[in-house]
This record gives sequence, structure tokens and C-alpha cells, in this order.
Amino acid sequence: MEQGHLSSSRNQFNENTDNSAETATEEQQMDFSTEIIGVTEMEQSPDSSPDLNAENMQESEIPDIESLQTTDIEAGFPPDFDKFWKVVEDNPQDFTGWVYLLQYVEQENHLPAARKAFDRFFTHYPYCYGYWKKYADLEKRHDNVKQSDEVYRRGLQAIPLSVDLWIHYINFLKETLDPADPETNSTIRGAYEHAVLAAGTDFRSDRLWEMYINWENEQGNLREVTSIYDRILGIPTQLYSHHFQRFKEHIQNNLPRDFLTTEQFVQLRRELASVNGHSGEDAQPDDDLPSGAEDITDPAKLITEIENMRHRIIEIHQEMFNHNEHEVSKRWTFEEAIKRPYFHVKPLEKIQLKNWKEYLEFEIENGTHERVVVLFERCVISCALYEDFWIKYAKYMENHSIEGVRHVYSRACTIHLPKKPMVHMLWAAFEEQQGNIDEARRILKTFEECILGLAMIRLRRVSLERRHGNMEDAEHLLEEAVRNAKSVSESSFYAIKLARHLFKVQKNLPKARKVLSEAIEVDKENTKLYLNLLEMEYSGDLKQNEENILSCFDKAVNGALSIKMRITFSQRKVEFLEDFGSDVKKLLDAYDEHQALLKEQDSLKRRAENG
Amino acid sequence: MEQGHLSSSRNQFNENTDNSAETATEEQQMDFSTEIIGVTEMEQSPDSSPDLNAENMQESEIPDIESLQTTDIEAGFPPDFDKFWKVVEDNPQDFTGWVYLLQYVEQENHLPAARKAFDRFFTHYPYCYGYWKKYADLEKRHDNVKQSDEVYRRGLQAIPLSVDLWIHYINFLKETLDPADPETNSTIRGAYEHAVLAAGTDFRSDRLWEMYINWENEQGNLREVTSIYDRILGIPTQLYSHHFQRFKEHIQNNLPRDFLTTEQFVQLRRELASVNGHSGEDAQPDDDLPSGAEDITDPAKLITEIENMRHRIIEIHQEMFNHNEHEVSKRWTFEEAIKRPYFHVKPLEKIQLKNWKEYLEFEIENGTHERVVVLFERCVISCALYEDFWIKYAKYMENHSIEGVRHVYSRACTIHLPKKPMVHMLWAAFEEQQGNIDEARRILKTFEECILGLAMIRLRRVSLERRHGNMEDAEHLLEEAVRNAKSVSESSFYAIKLARHLFKVQKNLPKARKVLSEAIEVDKENTKLYLNLLEMEYSGDLKQNEENILSCFDKAVNGALSIKMRITFSQRKVEFLEDFGSDVKKLLDAYDEHQALLKEQDSLKRRAENG
Repeated sequence: MEQGHLSSSRNQFNENTDNSAETATEEQQMDFSTEIIGVTEMEQSPDSSPDLNAENMQESEIPDIESLQTTDIEAGFPPDFDKFWKVVEDNPQDFTGWVYLLQYVEQENHLPAARKAFDRFFTHYPYCYGYWKKYADLEKRHDNVKQSDEVYRRGLQAIPLSVDLWIHYINFLKETLDPADPETNSTIRGAYEHAVLAAGTDFRSDRLWEMYINWENEQGNLREVTSIYDRILGIPTQLYSHHFQRFKEHIQNNLPRDFLTTEQFVQLRRELASVNGHSGEDAQPDDDLPSGAEDITDPAKLITEIENMRHRIIEIHQEMFNHNEHEVSKRWTFEEAIKRPYFHVKPLEKIQLKNWKEYLEFEIENGTHERVVVLFERCVISCALYEDFWIKYAKYMENHSIEGVRHVYSRACTIHLPKKPMVHMLWAAFEEQQGNIDEARRILKTFEECILGLAMIRLRRVSLERRHGNMEDAEHLLEEAVRNAKSVSESSFYAIKLARHLFKVQKNLPKARKVLSEAIEVDKENTKLYLNLLEMEYSGDLKQNEENILSCFDKAVNGALSIKMRITFSQRKVEFLEDFGSDVKKLLDAYDEHQALLKEQDSLKRRAENG
Repeated sequence: MEQGHLSSSRNQFNENTDNSAETATEEQQMDFSTEIIGVTEMEQSPDSSPDLNAENMQESEIPDIESLQTTDIEAGFPPDFDKFWKVVEDNPQDFTGWVYLLQYVEQENHLPAARKAFDRFFTHYPYCYGYWKKYADLEKRHDNVKQSDEVYRRGLQAIPLSVDLWIHYINFLKETLDPADPETNSTIRGAYEHAVLAAGTDFRSDRLWEMYINWENEQGNLREVTSIYDRILGIPTQLYSHHFQRFKEHIQNNLPRDFLTTEQFVQLRRELASVNGHSGEDAQPDDDLPSGAEDITDPAKLITEIENMRHRIIEIHQEMFNHNEHEVSKRWTFEEAIKRPYFHVKPLEKIQLKNWKEYLEFEIENGTHERVVVLFERCVISCALYEDFWIKYAKYMENHSIEGVRHVYSRACTIHLPKKPMVHMLWAAFEEQQGNIDEARRILKTFEECILGLAMIRLRRVSLERRHGNMEDAEHLLEEAVRNAKSVSESSFYAIKLARHLFKVQKNLPKARKVLSEAIEVDKENTKLYLNLLEMEYSGDLKQNEENILSCFDKAVNGALSIKMRITFSQRKVEFLEDFGSDVKKLLDAYDEHQALLKEQDSLKRRAENG
């Protein structure tokens, strides 16, 4: 979208680039339109079960929910507001629901209702820059310029890489600031500076740079223009070649004295003088030519100097250009492959995800830390709902900044991926490694309250306590899980974990045995319970434990298991008695018992075959 | 075959019996002819890999092999003898080879060669009664009556239940004994008595009994005839009704004074007198009638007494007959179903085996010990090559006679089933239970030398030593098995057993670990080795052992296993670190490692799919 109305000037790399870029742009525009209008393929969303928990919200801009709800009626909200609101409150991941709600409040033009809707919307989807613009426009339509400005600022804080949002904001400033006010220009320049610092290293930031250059040109600040070109010509962007072209025009169409600062001008004059006929640093300046900022009086000499200066400046920038072109060329294929640079709830194609992954790996290998971070930030806009990229980002940050890691995990978990377990577990593990056990505990507990019944979270909570010596807490967490399990098999799963914890960690075999025996009472057909009981009994001294082991075998062999499993246990019983049993008679009996079971199986099979 | 030329007289039970019995008999005759001529379906033999080991031969009749071999040439054996001999020496279970050899020696009529062939043959197939007859005939043809008699006696010792062989022997005696010799009759009677004692309770022994009765009749020994009927009428046999018919004729056609002993006669006379008009024990005998053995002079009274006596005797025997008929009726279906009562190397049909099994169970439940033993003996002729019946026999004997059990196992193992492991293992277990550890050890060792490489035998030898405290012997047996294994996987199998023995029995973890580590060096792709090493390390204290456990996991995860198994181990490593690991960082790393493996698997799959 960003490059939509700019034609690609990069013909030297790919003659077809223009056409394909146009096509891609059209697709992206269509895609973008669905983002605005609403999405139908919600089923495919990479984040399929979201429900942002109130406790997870940390951004301070969110208005207090309680106070808003009590004032809904007093504020005279439009009649259908509640209907639309309920949809998104029940399922905040219903993006279409949000689209309808926001359409409704815009159309009703009801400011408090709109504020409530937009504010809540952005706690879930801060990356939807188009909606920040709509929100700001709405405030502006109500002549709330200050509130509109505030909305833009919040939006740009949420998505500082959005070139579009910066451009909208600067245009808003140009429209709303008083041209007569002497502060206005510096405010606008400040906004441009803020914009290029935040988004100017984005490969697709050309429109912003060009707009900045044009604006300074309009103000007649040729030196500022030169200074901006000095920056953009060193940044690999899509339209790097176009900028160089325009830079050369800028140099050719203006006088060095106008587009250079005095210091730059004098330095260049001296440099040229030392090259033309004079050698050595001690050489005194030519008598004919001034060594300061004075004008040359001889018109022919003046023209020559101007041409020499232009030539030299372009020569210097040609080198910059060449280097930058090389950097661009390394990234061109990756950038070309990015078909959806903006946020969307629709899933990305696999090839898109693969491209992001490879691009990131390339940049980590070759780029500066700053470029890597910018690319990660661009990536987590496009792939905000894919936890893999957030995790990759956090892991990358581990080598650079502890606070940076925390910030990435926090944004991922509290805003974009409130229901993804892995990123929460990694965040907790990160805090645990930093020694913040309480924070790790809080992250897991909070997530578990949001997504009930995830075994891996419960087990991670258990192991966190265990690792830090809180054996009883670990035990209680497992007991609770056994008790509260939603099915018999889930209860047995935790009973096994509890028994293993009791036996292997707490070294309490009788208690562990009790847990499994009780579980078997309830879940008689669960093979794993018998196997674990057996494994536990088997761990001790086999001679002393022979009775227990055999009684465990008998429980399984004579129990409610399938005939196939009973045979497996019976086979193992025979093997146990052969390898470790004390009495050959018991071995023979077990063998006979095994043969009888095999016959039973045969006759069951035959009966089944005969219907 | 036994009842081949006798028609079934049991029409009261099944009107079609005659026909079906005839059909069955024809089939059996055909079957028998294949036994004589040779068998083509050897592949189906229940005992597929026999090689009777010299050490296992215990019957004393076998001539010394060494001395025979050195005299072969001196004796001028027929030219092709060696060729035929080699076949059966290489594979004693090649029954057809034996048939050709025996045919050859008979046809060449070369006595030393025939003796060598037959003597060796009977160490493997003592139940082939037809060949005993052929052997005896051959000796007789050479006028070696004494040797012929000896062959019969050896044959009857080997298969005392063979009615046919007894009949052949008695006919041989009748032919060869001097009728003028006063000893002859008592010799023949002695043979008959021996025969009916040995084979007379067989359901199909009627021909023998009838022959005995006829012979006594021929001798005019009516009292002996009566006495024999008294016995046979109490034994459930196939022709029980026929015997009763003939018994009644015997009574009707002869005078009581002639077919009863004087004591029987007097007792019967007194019994009839007390019934006819006299009551009470004190009553004096009728004046008209003698109370001793005196003749009655009144012809009318004499005839009346004779008729009364006949009537009373038949009445008494009618009761015996009724009882016997009831016993017969219970066994009739089982006996009818026995289609091959004699020995043969060809496998029996399943339905035949089932009938034997059910018949034995019936007889154990209902019959006398003597009848059960006779039935087992008949069964192990017909089913000599099925170890299940020998085992059933031995187990039955356990409740009756220790020596009996030993005799059954010994016959089964040393003669009929030299290559069946189960019966050997049970014999050894039996001797072990009797406290005969040396004998148990000998049985297993001897069998193992005969059948190399059977794991269950080696493991039973190990467990025998272990049970009796010989831990080092157990260890050495396993070490030897590791060393001498024929394949890498077999070696690993024993390494696992050895390691478990060292760890669980000898409590020597370092040595056990060494065994498994060395095995892994050789057999890098064997999952079980890693699993067992893991299980062992896992048995100890998990905190102290964490390094060992993890290094074992790493061995498996980074080793030469399939990607699928590596993933399984990696999964278990993650679980281990979650449940018991001390460091969350290691857990995270293991998780990443696991994800990387999953990706590797995916790409391998995709590569495979794309060819």
C-alpha cells in the first residue's frame, strides 16, 4: 500500500518489476479493503481461541471498563450499540464483529459510543493503522482537534513503523496548525524527524522521505534537503535509485552555495583546490581563488568551480549509492516477496511466513542490530498472530537486552497472543531464569485462569515449584489437577504425574502406590496406571518386592483391561518370573496362565469372526 | 487297524456305525500302507527338526555304534547300504529315508545290515509295531527263533499296548513252540495273560480277548473261558456286546459243572436252594437236593437246576453287562472319533487332537487311575510327536507318582521329542522342584548342545543358577551368550538381560552400564539398548543421576537411530526435564532440539514424497 502511487524505479535489477509491483499493489489494496470492511474467513485465523483477559491489559490508555458500563445508558448510546458490543465482548477475536461495531458507531457519529468502541478495539488490535485514522478523523469531525491529535499520538506509539499513519498525522498537522504561527514549521519538521527516526529505515519508507524532502523544498530549505538526501541515500529502501536521480537534479538545478552549509562549502572549495595543481597539506591557497566563503569574481572560474563542486558531490554520493545499491540487492528478493506488510487477522500463506523467517535470519546474519530490530518490528505487525515470530524476536533480544526481551514477551502475551501457551511458557521461563520466580508464577497462573485445563501449563507450574524446592506446592498443584480433572483419563494422567513426583522426587513409595491404586479403582481400563505402578514396584529390590510386583501383575492380568493388554501384562509377568522370580513353580504357573489367556483370545477372535 | 477285520456290533447305539466304521477302517488301512511304504508329506511333520543326540539314548538294547561301524566292511554289507544309511544318519527325522533303508535291507536279506538298520530305527521310532514284526520275521526266516523271540519281546516292551504285536507274537509262539512239550501250553497262556494285562483294558483289545477265549476253548478249558469272560465283561471295549452274546452261548451250550469251578458250582447251588423255598441262613439244605458237589439223580430236577443255574449266571452277568454298557456309552463318541490309533510321523488333524484332549479330560474326571494311564499311553502312541500330550501326561502323573512323572518326561525327551524345548524345560523344572539341581542343569545343558541358540533355554539355564544362588554362573552364561551370539541383535538381546541381571540382581550399576554402553557401540540402531540404559539410570536418584540420564538421552537423540525413534527419545527427554530436571534452561533447549527434529522429519518426509 505504501508504494501504491509510486512507480518502481528499479529497472536495472528487474525489468518486470514495475508490472509485478503494480499487480502486488492492487492485491494489497484489495486485501486492505477487506481489512477495513470486514473479514469472512475468520475460521482460518492463526489465533483461534482468544479472549483477552482483563488482568492482562497493561496499556494505560484503556479507559476504566466499570465506569464506562455504568454510564452507557446515561450517555444515551445509540439503540443497537449493546447488540454489537455484546458480540465482541463475548468473543474479542471475532474481527468481523469489531468491523460491524466500528462501522455502526462511525455511522451513528456518536462520540462517546465511538470512543468506547475504538478504545476497546485497540487493546486487541493496535496494529490496525487504518482504524486509528478513522478514530482521529471522527474526533476531528467533532472539532476535537486536541483529542484527534491525541489519538494520532496513541496510534503512532502503538505502531510507530506505520508510514501511512505518520503521513496521515503530518497532513493532519499541516491542515490544523496555524500557518501564521511561527512555531508551526518547527512543529511539522519535528513530526517529520520523529517519523523518519521511527519508520525511516523501513524498506518501504520512501513516500515519507520524499514527502519530507518536498516539504523542505517548498519551504526553500535547500540545505535541509541536501541533509535529508545524505541520510536516505545511505538507507536501503525500495526507491533508492529514484532518490539518487532526484538528488542529482537537486544538485544540478541549484547552486552549491545554496544547498551546502558554509562549512561544507569552504571544505569542498579547499578540497578541490588541493586537488587542482596543489599538492601537500602545507600548500598555500591559490592567490586567484578564495580560500574562504568569498565569491569568485571571474565568471568563467565561478562556473568551473560550480561544475567541479557538483561533479565532486555527485561523485561522493555515487559511492554511497553504489554501496546502498549493494545492500538493496541483498534484500530485494525478500522485500519483493512480502505481499502483506500490514496487520490482518487472516492467516498468511506459508510462503509468506517462510519469507519472513528467512529474511530475519539473513538480517540477523548480515545486518546491524538496529536494522534487525526494525525488521522484527515490521514482521510482528504482519505476523502479529504467529507466536513463532514473537518467540524468535524475544530470543534474538536475549543477546542484547534483558529489558528488550521482557518487552517483547509482554507485548506478545498481553496484547496479541493472550491465548497462546508457548509464548507464555517461554516468558515465564525467561523470568524464572532472571530469578523472578514470583513473576514466572504469576504469568503461568494468570494464563491458566484464562485458558483452563491445559496440561502443559499445569505441569510447568508444578515443575517451577519443584525446581525451587517447593515440593509440597508442586504436590498440591498435582492433587488439585487430579481432583478437578474433567474426565477420568485426565485424572489418571495427573495421578501418574503425582505418583511419579511422590516416588521419584519425594521418595515416598507408599503414598505414590496409594495414588495409583486409587486411580486404578476409578479407571480400571487404563493400561498406563498399571504400567506405572509396576515400574515403581520394579524400581526397588526385586526380591523383597516380588509379592507386590506379582500382585500388581495379577491386578492387570485379571482386571478389566482388553484381552490384548492382559496378554501383554501376562507375558511380562512370565518374563519377570524368568528373569527375577524366586520360584520356578510360580514361573510354570504364570506360563500356563499365559497360555490360557492366549486360548481365550483365540476363542474370542473366532467368536467375533463367526459374528 | 486293530478292529479292521471285525465288524462293529454296536448297533444299539448308532445304526450307521457299521458302515462308517468300515469306511474309517479302509482309510486307516490306506494310512497304514503309507506308513509301511513311506511318507511323502514329511514337511507337515509336527516335529520338524529332530536329531536324536547319542547322549540322549538311554535304552540298553541299542548296540554299540562304534563297534558296528568298524565292522561294516568286514561283514560285507550290501553295496548300497552306506548310501541309504547316510540319509537317515544325517537326518534321523527323514522317515521316508528309513522306509527305503529298511526296504533295502529286507530285500537284500542281509542279517547284520538289517539288524543295524532296525536297531537304530527303533531308537527313533519304537512305536512302529509293523516294523518290529518285520524284524522278527526276518530273524525267523534265518531260523533265528531265539533272536526273533527277543525282537518280539523288545518290541512289546517298547509298545506294550499294541494288540497287533501281541497277536503276532502269540501266533509266533504257537508256530515255533513244540506242541509235544508239556511246557508249551503254559508258555502260551503266560503270553496271553501278559498280553491282556498289558493291552487288555484298551478299548480296542477285543481281538486279543477273543483269541484268548478261543484258544482256551480249543484246549477245552471251559472254566478258564468263563474266567476270561468274567474279566472282559467288566472292561469297556468296542465289542462288549458281542462278548456278552458269546458268553451266553458259552453258558447255554455247556454244563455249569463244566464251566464253573467246584467252589463256584457249590456256592451257586446253595444260593439257588436258599432262594427256592428256604429262607434264613440257618435253614438246612433240602433233603432232596445235594448241598455239595454231588450229582442230582433226578433227571427232571437236574435239568431244572441246570436251567436255574444258567439263568442265574446270565442274570448276574447281565448286571455286569449293563454297567459296562453304560461305561462304553460314555466313551463311544470319543472312541469312534479316533481315526488313527497307531503311530505315524504324519501330523494329525486338528479335530483328532481335540478329541484326544477331550477324551483324556473325560477319563481324568471319570475313570480310574489305571484307565487314565492306559488312555494316556494310547494317546502318546498316536500323538507321540505332540509335546502337549506328553506334558499333559506328566502333569497328570504329578498327583500320583514322582517316578511316573520322571518316566514320562524321560521317554518324551530322550526318544520321541529330542528337539522340543518346552517338554525339556518342564522336565528340568520338575527335577529342580524335586531338588535335583544337577539333573535339571544336565537336562537343559544337553538339550542346548543339541539345539543351539534357543534363547529360552539359555535364559532358563541362567535363571536356574540365579534361583540357586549361583550368581556368577548366571552372569557367565549370559556373558557367553553375548559373546557367541550369531547376530548383532542377538548379542544385544543378551546384553540387555546381562545388564538387568547385573543391575537388579547383583546391584552393580557401573558394570551394567558398561555392558549396555559397549553393546550400543556395536549395535547403534538398537532402540531397546538405549531404553534399558535409560531405565537403569532412571532407577536411581534423579537429581544425582541427571547428567547420566541426559547423556543417555543425547546418545539416543543424536545417534544412529531412525528419525522417528530419535523423536521419541527427544520427546521423553523433554518430559524428563519437565518432570524432574533441575534447570529450566535445559528444558527450553531440549524443547527447541525437539522442534528441530520434528522439522527434520518433515523435510525428510517431503523429500521422500517428492522422490
